Amino acid sequence: MSDAKKRVTASFNAQGLMQTLGAELVHVADGEVHIALWPRPELTQQHGYVHAGAITSAVDSACGYAALTLAPAEHDVLTVEFKVNFMRPAGGDRILTVGKVIKPGKTISVCQGEVIGEREGKHTSIALMQATMMLAPRSD
Amino acid sequence: MSDAKKRVTASFNAQGLMQTLGAELVHVADGEVHIALWPRPELTQQHGYVHAGAITSAVDSACGYAALTLAPAEHDVLTVEFKVNFMRPAGGDRILTVGKVIKPGKTISVCQGEVIGEREGKHTSIALMQATMMLAPRSD
Amino acid sequence: MSDAKKRVTASFNAQGLMQTLGAELVHVADGEVHIALWPRPELTQQHGYVHAGAITSAVDSACGYAALTLAPAEHDVLTVEFKVNFMRPAGGDRILTVGKVIKPGKTISVCQGEVIGEREGKHTSIALMQATMMLAPRSD
Amino acid sequence: MSDAKKRVTASFNAQGLMQTLGAELVHVADGEVHIALWPRPELTQQHGYVHAGAITSAVDSACGYAALTLAPAEHDVLTVEFKVNFMRPAGGDRILTVGKVIKPGKTISVCQGEVIGEREGKHTSIALMQATMMLAPRSD
Repeated sequence: MSDAKKRVTASFNAQGLMQTLGAELVHVADGEVHIALWPRPELTQQHGYVHAGAITSAVDSACGYAALTLAPAEHDVLTVEFKVNFMRPAGGDRILTVGKVIKPGKTISVCQGEVIGEREGKHTSIALMQATMMLAPRSD
Repeated sequence: MSDAKKRVTASFNAQGLMQTLGAELVHVADGEVHIALWPRPELTQQHGYVHAGAITSAVDSACGYAALTLAPAEHDVLTVEFKVNFMRPAGGDRILTVGKVIKPGKTISVCQGEVIGEREGKHTSIALMQATMMLAPRSD
Repeated sequence: MSDAKKRVTASFNAQGLMQTLGAELVHVADGEVHIALWPRPELTQQHGYVHAGAITSAVDSACGYAALTLAPAEHDVLTVEFKVNFMRPAGGDRILTVGKVIKPGKTISVCQGEVIGEREGKHTSIALMQATMMLAPRSD
Repeated sequence: MSDAKKRVTASFNAQGLMQTLGAELVHVADGEVHIALWPRPELTQQHGYVHAGAITSAVDSACGYAALTLAPAEHDVLTVEFKVNFMRPAGGDRILTVGKVIKPGKTISVCQGEVIGEREGKHTSIALMQATMMLAPRSD
């Protein structure tokens, strides 16, 4: 396992919310991380689709960890801000969130995230994130 | 209970995610809704603070329901998009999310949300949301 | 000239600001429009680079017109909101702004915009936009 | 004139775009700056209203300068990103853009901006900005 993958995996496993949502870390590469969710009643909004906040939680983590893969050792990543457009109802057999670094930086990294609904092999784009992440030396 | 409060309460109770997060609907007025969260291990990010996605879920619902209080009967509200700045670590005895309608509209409503950490009577602004909500006739 | 190109060209020529900025409509295709700017003293911020607002003006128009190319006849496009990340200083021989429709809709279209600095054949990504456009029947 | 006002005025006067738009710096206080625009044919979009990009240029400068008033001496401010909702057509006798610091920081400041249309003494909210500014030691 690469150093980046080890760092991301350890941090992901320390997140209570990712376990609460049933999220799974499915791919870690330099500048790109995927996190999956499975639609279930615990994650719904009022119409039975997955809540915008649940998919935002996963794609925010995917973007943050994508930035972490390119950060210097002993650094951590914080979300400065993000913006998400919700384009279609969030459903499917599995929901894949993809975080990619568009512009890595020493202090600020800009990321794009996409949320994809997978149903019987068909993929649909559900939501789009544009996020600003901050890199800082670890304080612990 | 006012009609608006009944509509918001019924919709809130139908959200699986709000129960999963332990969120509580604490205030419903015309154009303003408050939802509270309590920090606990199930909601954390990797440093033990509440995850950006958990507070975003609550403040998104607060903004959406604020828009719903001003919507015509038999209408529903969908999140078109939101943007959130995270200004301080999310902690405290209780986290209050406040959603307000800034510009109500027939199709599009613009809302602002604030996330406030409460600790021993002291209030700190944690995050700021600017959101676009869409009103549409109910399809159910 | 296609109908879409005629509509976009007529609308672009009616924009006082595009002339003031010296912007030029350089490409119109279904779902994608390019508008170019040339760095000059009239467009600068305090350090001599092109002002964030100037490139935002051009890429907003590019995204709006990209949405217009896919709109029904006799419809118009309004910017509901946009978000822009500024990744590098805006300079070069020419600045190309590219607007693309990511999710066309009957009422709302989601677009992505990119601002590219061109210098001696080298292209650099300067800024990234994510925008929400609204389609409405023309009122004139 | 206070030090902050001198710094903001000098920087504003060095911006070519503010002159091109006919913008005027009308108020500088700690954490709050106002910049005014006057509707005229050079600033219009295709329907004769002021272009979203023109008001964005002014309110971006207002937010950036609001952050500069609270920055250490010999520091400069850069726009990391902003998001703007356009709520009503931009018109009036005068357009006032107001930038305020919501959360000042050593590296990152979060600002809110509002764009107000003034017509015969009546004020209308036209647009709302939420912005992230970065403070950095001056390189010149």
